[in-house]
Amino acid sequence: MKIALLQINPLVGDLSGNARLIADGACEAGRQGADLAVTPELALVGYLPRDLLLSEAFVARSWEVVAALARDLINQPPVLVGLPEPNPSDAGRPLFNTAVLLHEGEIGPRFRKSLLPTYDVFDEDRYFEPYHGAQILELGGRRLGISICEDVWNDRDFWKRRRYHHDPIEELIRSGADAIVNLSASPFSVGKYRRREEMLGSMARKHRVPVVYVNQFGGNDDLVFDGRSLAFDADGTPIARGRSFGADVVICDLEHGAAIAPAGDVSAESEIWRALVLGTGDYVRKCGFSHAVVGLSGGIDSALTAAIAAEAIGPDQVLGVLMPSPYSSRGSIDDATELATRLGIRTLTLPIEPAMRAIESTLAPAFEGRPRDVTEENIQARIRGNLLMALSNKRGALLLTTGNKSEISVGYCTLYGDMSGGLAVIADVPKTMVYRIARWLNETRGRRMIPEATLTKAPSAELRPDQTDQDSLPAYDVLDDILQRHIEQHQPADEIIADGFDPDTVRRVLRMVRQSEFKRKQAAPGLKVTDRAFGTGWRMPIAAKLES
Amino acid sequence: MKIALLQINPLVGDLSGNARLIADGACEAGRQGADLAVTPELALVGYLPRDLLLSEAFVARSWEVVAALARDLINQPPVLVGLPEPNPSDAGRPLFNTAVLLHEGEIGPRFRKSLLPTYDVFDEDRYFEPYHGAQILELGGRRLGISICEDVWNDRDFWKRRRYHHDPIEELIRSGADAIVNLSASPFSVGKYRRREEMLGSMARKHRVPVVYVNQFGGNDDLVFDGRSLAFDADGTPIARGRSFGADVVICDLEHGAAIAPAGDVSAESEIWRALVLGTGDYVRKCGFSHAVVGLSGGIDSALTAAIAAEAIGPDQVLGVLMPSPYSSRGSIDDATELATRLGIRTLTLPIEPAMRAIESTLAPAFEGRPRDVTEENIQARIRGNLLMALSNKRGALLLTTGNKSEISVGYCTLYGDMSGGLAVIADVPKTMVYRIARWLNETRGRRMIPEATLTKAPSAELRPDQTDQDSLPAYDVLDDILQRHIEQHQPADEIIADGFDPDTVRRVLRMVRQSEFKRKQAAPGLKVTDRAFGTGWRMPIAAKLES
Repeated sequence: MKIALLQINPLVGDLSGNARLIADGACEAGRQGADLAVTPELALVGYLPRDLLLSEAFVARSWEVVAALARDLINQPPVLVGLPEPNPSDAGRPLFNTAVLLHEGEIGPRFRKSLLPTYDVFDEDRYFEPYHGAQILELGGRRLGISICEDVWNDRDFWKRRRYHHDPIEELIRSGADAIVNLSASPFSVGKYRRREEMLGSMARKHRVPVVYVNQFGGNDDLVFDGRSLAFDADGTPIARGRSFGADVVICDLEHGAAIAPAGDVSAESEIWRALVLGTGDYVRKCGFSHAVVGLSGGIDSALTAAIAAEAIGPDQVLGVLMPSPYSSRGSIDDATELATRLGIRTLTLPIEPAMRAIESTLAPAFEGRPRDVTEENIQARIRGNLLMALSNKRGALLLTTGNKSEISVGYCTLYGDMSGGLAVIADVPKTMVYRIARWLNETRGRRMIPEATLTKAPSAELRPDQTDQDSLPAYDVLDDILQRHIEQHQPADEIIADGFDPDTVRRVLRMVRQSEFKRKQAAPGLKVTDRAFGTGWRMPIAAKLES
Repeated sequence: MKIALLQINPLVGDLSGNARLIADGACEAGRQGADLAVTPELALVGYLPRDLLLSEAFVARSWEVVAALARDLINQPPVLVGLPEPNPSDAGRPLFNTAVLLHEGEIGPRFRKSLLPTYDVFDEDRYFEPYHGAQILELGGRRLGISICEDVWNDRDFWKRRRYHHDPIEELIRSGADAIVNLSASPFSVGKYRRREEMLGSMARKHRVPVVYVNQFGGNDDLVFDGRSLAFDADGTPIARGRSFGADVVICDLEHGAAIAPAGDVSAESEIWRALVLGTGDYVRKCGFSHAVVGLSGGIDSALTAAIAAEAIGPDQVLGVLMPSPYSSRGSIDDATELATRLGIRTLTLPIEPAMRAIESTLAPAFEGRPRDVTEENIQARIRGNLLMALSNKRGALLLTTGNKSEISVGYCTLYGDMSGGLAVIADVPKTMVYRIARWLNETRGRRMIPEATLTKAPSAELRPDQTDQDSLPAYDVLDDILQRHIEQHQPADEIIADGFDPDTVRRVLRMVRQSEFKRKQAAPGLKVTDRAFGTGWRMPIAAKLES
């Protein structure tokens, strides 16, 4: 049996557009002789649709569209399509997370998701009722066990701790499934790809059945989906793999598939770069923009952000804005200019001193007798935010925010200032990784994209004379290590200190993290690349008091 | 049997502080001869603790604190205390939502929540494993059925559609419970109080047992809890009611309780006013501030926000800032000044023209040949945001945002401009209700707090000459009606149009709502007063396309 994995990039809510993507894939599957085509999870509405699912009209419309799609595909192989289904019972949550078989012009059998992820960025218990019972699709002499995304993520032999009490795959096998098909929408994070491949391979081996897994690709708000649909034979050997971060129609032959080579460059630097390029390009495009604006400080964060933008939407579509102040060094201006030349993006220079003077003299009577402090630094950042947003408004270009994860973690950034923008491109990338990606870029591109001075000078916000980041923060390698332990591994202060870190530093860093919740609450969406990002998967109270 | 309802105002995360509140309440209960004291749900950690629950160290610490509390209360009546409990199983979610009995210096039996709300602002499936099985506390000859919050909200005879498949209260009754005790943390919304009282009364009547319900009060981020703990006799007659929006230790006698009078003024105006005053005061205090800053435009929104702030933290603690531009009318300045005089708050005047000139001339080369548009309006709003945040930073005072629900719905507001601030006080109050509350305030306070001109003049953002809100928006009564139908009642365009509204207006309003998700994503937390507020309970995609 040949199965076609339709690795598409749906636009959330765009039922007709997504139906076209599915139809195109199904026709290609037909041309290639597939016996069945399979979309990703909830492909018709795009994952994740969030509270669009609370609109009964939207869900009803998706069934009209899928019925029309079935008619359009009457001459194609059967297609399993993911979409939300109203729960007909008078008790329970309003929907099922469903896949329907489109076959011979009709909507055929339905298959419903059993395990509903409700952690990190996922909220499926908010919308969906879990379904219990094995769901087999009999087709071409095979008994295909149909599962949806999380259904494959609860194997007792693979995970130390399981979030659910039953294993839908075990149940499918007990009901006689001789292959497992999985419709997924599994967001990217660094290293997750390997975990996925290991888990699915071990599942095939354990049950001695082929496993077929279809993932969407593309950026949807803060999430990037990496594609890389997979198929394994009954030995757990990979026999097909979809493109990473791109569209694909992957044909796999369950009986006659041959082993394929391992994936290519999956270094963290390469993976994050590609995810951010895809996520940025899709956000710009899916929000209806074609141009972007980036403030260029001459520092590493704005340099990497601009490089990502130039790669994602083309250098012609990116405007770099230099906004020097009296505290800006000559080097910063030169570095920003050189970066723009290397990337091939246009620049504009808007000095902020006149606005600084106007605002400071307006405030002078109110500030009389009070010393200069961080207030005056924030004023500068907010003038820059105002100028950038004015360019964004006037030109209809999306402003990209340049803050990294380290500074957003500890609040070393100005709300309504450098935090302004529609998308925070590197918000989930720690500062040390920002440097690693920039160096990797220079090494692999055959030309230096990021100026050497930007890579080697001491990081500085340049908001007062001779300022450097390390006046306020621990060295970035120490800071990032503490942050990674605390944020991603949930380590409390005691444990981090016990691992040899300076107690005062650890407590100060964790206090800064807590005290900047109010900033993150108003931050732009940031592209998620680690296992725990700020944003939709980070839900902390603001008005709270914690023992340190 | 006498039960004491400990209606406290916990600070999220403040284990020691919350333990003190519980201890004080338990001692008062002891003095009044109670046989049992009951806290609200998760009282030791404060509701809702959100992702603090993902910290194992935090949960472990809460058990140390509750053990110490048990020892402290050795001479007091037994106390039921709510806190999170680790799930010892190797499958399922990490915690239970639990109540423990503190008795004779020890931690006694545990009672776990069965129904876990995962909708609107609630995410309990993210943290908690549901518990199945009736949990009876035998005490003083009674069999008390212990339930937690949502457990009482699934009665098949009360609700048309039920979210859960079983009814824990039915199960408690079948297991011989002769009274129902409920630990709750039930946030305020307009009209919810009446629904709660009806539901609990009907439950008592149906099962012929007394029902006792303890609610927390106070503001925690976007949620306000109104207290009003309740007790009913076996006829469903209310026999005790805690203060609304305040602290209380309510003693109810299950056998000898006498009927009490209905609640007092529960008009929407009064209810919202009291909720916003409590929510604002608590947010300021719980975030560690004592002062607040409000921009005063002379309009109704900033007038009501300032009045709320003055009531919440005292007029001496509120600074009103006038920021006139060349487009400000004389009337606006006079109205803002008069408001400040009536409220007794200090003012500061910071004209924005110098900063406007500086920013506009900085941008002039970049804007050459392009007509003036909304960009220049946003520049003004962002200068004001910069000035207000500078005052906030320099003085350590919290900036309060003044936008109402109508304008936030349709995006008639400037990101990083008038949307700046730590708390959006009236963000869930529609414009028409802002007027109603202001008039109610003037009528009930024995003095006009809001100037008459502010109530009667045409609303205007004053960002260009002779501008009024109705240049861009439908009349507010029409707009608010459409928004209420769409946002709170989930009506799609078709249905609203079928009810007699102008089709173009409806489609335009719904389009504006969709297109302003990116603004709301970066909005300050807003105090929730309706059944569906923007904020933690509103989870819409940004990069999405919807058919209109």
